[in-house]
Order: sequence, then structure tokens, then C-alpha cells
Amino acid sequence: MMGGDYAPLATLEGVAGVLQQLGPDSQLWLIGDQTTIDEFLSRQGLKDDRLFVVHASEVIHMDENPIRAFQQKPDSSLAKGYALLASQKIDVLASAGHSGAVMVGAMHALKAIEGIVRPCVASAFPLPNGRKNILLDVGINVECKPEMLVQFAQLGEIYAREVWGINKARVGLLNTGSEKSKGSPLYQKAHELLRSEASLNFIGNIEPRDFFDGNVDVTVCDGFTGNIFLKQAEGFYKLLQQRKVNDDYLSLFNYEQYGGTPVLGVNGNVILGHGVSSALAISNMILASEKVASANLAQHIKKAFQ
Amino acid sequence: MMGGDYAPLATLEGVAGVLQQLGPDSQLWLIGDQTTIDEFLSRQGLKDDRLFVVHASEVIHMDENPIRAFQQKPDSSLAKGYALLASQKIDVLASAGHSGAVMVGAMHALKAIEGIVRPCVASAFPLPNGRKNILLDVGINVECKPEMLVQFAQLGEIYAREVWGINKARVGLLNTGSEKSKGSPLYQKAHELLRSEASLNFIGNIEPRDFFDGNVDVTVCDGFTGNIFLKQAEGFYKLLQQRKVNDDYLSLFNYEQYGGTPVLGVNGNVILGHGVSSALAISNMILASEKVASANLAQHIKKAFQ
Repeated sequence: MMGGDYAPLATLEGVAGVLQQLGPDSQLWLIGDQTTIDEFLSRQGLKDDRLFVVHASEVIHMDENPIRAFQQKPDSSLAKGYALLASQKIDVLASAGHSGAVMVGAMHALKAIEGIVRPCVASAFPLPNGRKNILLDVGINVECKPEMLVQFAQLGEIYAREVWGINKARVGLLNTGSEKSKGSPLYQKAHELLRSEASLNFIGNIEPRDFFDGNVDVTVCDGFTGNIFLKQAEGFYKLLQQRKVNDDYLSLFNYEQYGGTPVLGVNGNVILGHGVSSALAISNMILASEKVASANLAQHIKKAFQ
Repeated sequence: MMGGDYAPLATLEGVAGVLQQLGPDSQLWLIGDQTTIDEFLSRQGLKDDRLFVVHASEVIHMDENPIRAFQQKPDSSLAKGYALLASQKIDVLASAGHSGAVMVGAMHALKAIEGIVRPCVASAFPLPNGRKNILLDVGINVECKPEMLVQFAQLGEIYAREVWGINKARVGLLNTGSEKSKGSPLYQKAHELLRSEASLNFIGNIEPRDFFDGNVDVTVCDGFTGNIFLKQAEGFYKLLQQRKVNDDYLSLFNYEQYGGTPVLGVNGNVILGHGVSSALAISNMILASEKVASANLAQHIKKAFQ
């Protein structure tokens, strides 16, 4: 409740806005300052059996050192959330707070799943055909080894199967051309490894200009390139808004529609929201989290890497 | 005349389409199969004192090995063009042909300017405010050292000054966040070097979401990231076309409007066109080439690095 530039008001309004769409068996645990939360709920006349409030007395601010903040504020909403997730009191943790601190929590409180070299974050881009193309890594691992890109592909493939119900997801490698010799040595080697990984349905390199064509379900790249790609998409959405372009499909590029980016490869389901999250973004993040929890995503990943 | 997927018809039509806009003192040397060119010109009734035809009996095809093709086809339109440029018979060479072969020619026939570690290619993106933001490298150097990014910044700064008339161009480093600690070690070190280079007006990291805001004139990155960025922009333009979005500014994202990408840091002015160039793209490439030649760009770069 306390994370994000517009928290706690935006997070609370996001909760209020999503309750109707939430499954009857789902529970929403609101972690943050109890007084603030209770006051908001009573002011809104919100009484719901699925809502639970967990008091957290501390807040991690956006400009804090993430490691220090996470370790020195055990009563922050984030640290409490991770404690609840680690002890399986909750099935998924969603936060629009300090992204560095969210990742520190994921690595320290949950830890990487055994067999995973490096967890990553993913972003599912909407396609004109109504499907999605999930790109990973979009941020954590600014430097990668070829083997990591193969694991990202495996993680994306499990995500596509368990969350979207897509079997044998088509996997592409983001690259500057279709030939296997394209890109840096990292990408050349990753292409070779992906090609030889029999468990994957690798369809080859995918150029950014063809990313939205619907020929792949999962696209892998290093975290620096992926983050640049993600932020360039935001840049284009900004241009569309400035130019007052009104289009149903293109409006999906609004980050508020994304529902946050799942953290993959740690012992628990975590969804990382955008720091500037509005109430609508929070609502969509909660719905995305519900899906990931229902799919038991982290459990499936753990099983696959056993 | 012979380079590009739709050559020679598109290149010839591009010439026909641009003659009216070309300066009275400019000359256009058409290098390619003389019979084909002459037939086209007479069919179109095109007689112009500024047009010169140079016969070239060979063609470099898109699927050829660039080094071998350039060396083994001295009578190709590309090799002849480079010979003319190296001997200063022409002031600029433009080609929509095999981009690898164009680069091989630039490196072998012209060579890098002394003091330049690695030449690069640049792409000038249109901004809503009517100005441009030139991104470099967008393709050749898929792996970079921090020092190379500083040279890219210097090359971009000279381009902005000599071609656009912008003094003390504002330089940004493409990165995933504004803090100097962002990005891979390459980007962290490049930030430090750019900051300490007194001759540059370095304004810091620029996130892709802010790329089009008009706060910088020159943006530097490694060639892999730049090429991904360029091709993602093409991908968005493809989406805009699919969605039938009609907007004056956004239509500038059409590669046909770009006029090709200048090759910077070699001993001569070279403009690299898009392989799929249409007649309109060829016309704009010719106009961009005229500008670069009038600005004496390569000469200014040479002087700056003496």
C-alpha cells in the first residue's frame, strides 16, 4: 500500500476499483499503515470479506539505498510482504514501490530457485492479433552470459504455458537481423544454444520491426537491451498521447494497462509495478497478480528446474 | 543505381523525382548499367545538365559476402562509386545497396580518419518540436569500448554543427535511467568519460521514453542497442500504418522520409540507404547527401581530429 509515487492514495483507489473484478475466493491483503487504510476503507464504505489489513509502520522511500533500506526497515510494507510470501501466508506479492528494493527483497527473502543462474523480469507486450509477446529480461541483468538467455527462454515458455495456456510457445531471440551471425558474440552464442535446446520451440532471431507481427510468444534479450526496448515503447506511447492518437489497440501501450512486470525465477510470485502507478495501473497489477497466483507460476518454474 | 531491393527502377525514379529540388550547382552522377540508365532517361524525356552517367558493368547482390564481393567486383556500381569518391571526383556517395558492402567499401577504399578508433553510422530521428535527435552508433559496432562512445558524441556534435547549424549541441547517453550508476559497466564508464570531456555539452543519461522530448540533439549508444532502437522505431511505424493512424509528425517515422544514415568517421561523405528503398526514399537520400556534401562534413571531421 505504501509503495509508488502516488501511494497510498493511488494504491487504495486501485484496490477500491478492482474489488468487483476479483474472484470470490481471492483475498487481498493490504500491507501498510493501518490507520490510513482503515480510514480510507470506512470513508469509501468498503466492507469486504476478501480484504485483510496488515499493519506496517515503516515506508521505503524511492531515493533510499535499496539494500540498506530493505535490511534496516523490517517493518516496512515491502519487508512485511516478503515475510508473508516466504511463509506462504500469501500467494503473490505486488508492489509499485522502489524497484531496487523489490528486487533485493526477492533475492534475499525468497532467493533464486535452485538451478536458476539469474532471475529476471518480464514484460508482456500486446499484439494487434489480441495475443501477447513476453519480453525478458527487461531490467535486472544488464550484463548477460549466453546461458542466461536460454534460461530466460525457459522461464518465458513456462509463463506462456501456465498463465496464458499456450503449449510449446514460439521463442525468438531479439536481434538486429534474422541471420544467426547477427549481433554481438553474446547474441551469436545465445542463438546457437537456443537452437540446440531441444525442449524449446526456437524460431530464430526476431528483429524489433517484426516484434509485433505475432510470430513469437516469448522473446529473450539481455536486461539492458530489454529495458531500453520497454522504455522506448513508453516513449512511443507518450508521442501518441501528445499527438492525440486514439486507437483501441495502441492505447494498450499505456503502462497502466500492463499490470506490472512479473519477477521470474525466485521462490515466490512477485509482480513489480511501475513507480508512477495510477489507481488504474494498481487495479490491473492486482488482476495480473491474481492470474499468476492462480497459475501457481513460481511452483511450476521450481518443478521445471528440479 | 544498382543497389537496393527495387533497383534500378526505384533508384531511377528517385532520381527523376528529385531533380526539381536539387540545387542548380549540384551534379548527380548515376553509376550503373549505362544502357538501362540511358533508356530510362530517354523514356522519361529527362535531359538535364546536372546528370552524368558512369557505366558500371557489375552488380553486388544482397546475399553476397560483402568483403569478397567488394574486392572481386571492381566494376560494380559501388566499387566505382568509391573510386570516384576517393579521387574526389564526387563529393558524396549514396547507396541503398548491400549495407555490409557499403561499409567494407568505406573502410577499404576510404579508410577511417586518423584518430578515429571506429567509424559509425547515425540516424536522425524527427522530434515533435521540428528539430532532430541524431542517434549513433546505429549499427556497425555491436561491441564498444567507453572511449568509442565519446568519439561518437564528438562525431554527432560536428554533424549537428555543420549540417544543422547547431552550436554546442546537447549530448545525451542513451541509458535505462538518469543516474550515472545506471546501465552496464560500459555505460557507467562512458557516462564518466563524457562528463569529463570539457569540449562536449553533455547533459547526462537520456532514457528512451524521453528521447523525443527535445532535450538533446545528439544521443550516443553502442551499435547493437542503437540498431535495436532504430528497428523498434520502424516497428512502431509499421503498427501505425496497420492501425491507419494519420498524423503529420508520426508519418515522419516512415524510413522513406529519413534520407538514409550517414557513415561518420571515414575519409569521405557516405550515405547508407535502406535496402528496401522506394523511389521516395531514394529522392530523400539524394537530398540528404547534397546537404552533407555542401557542409563538407568529412572534411570538418578530419580537421577536428587532427
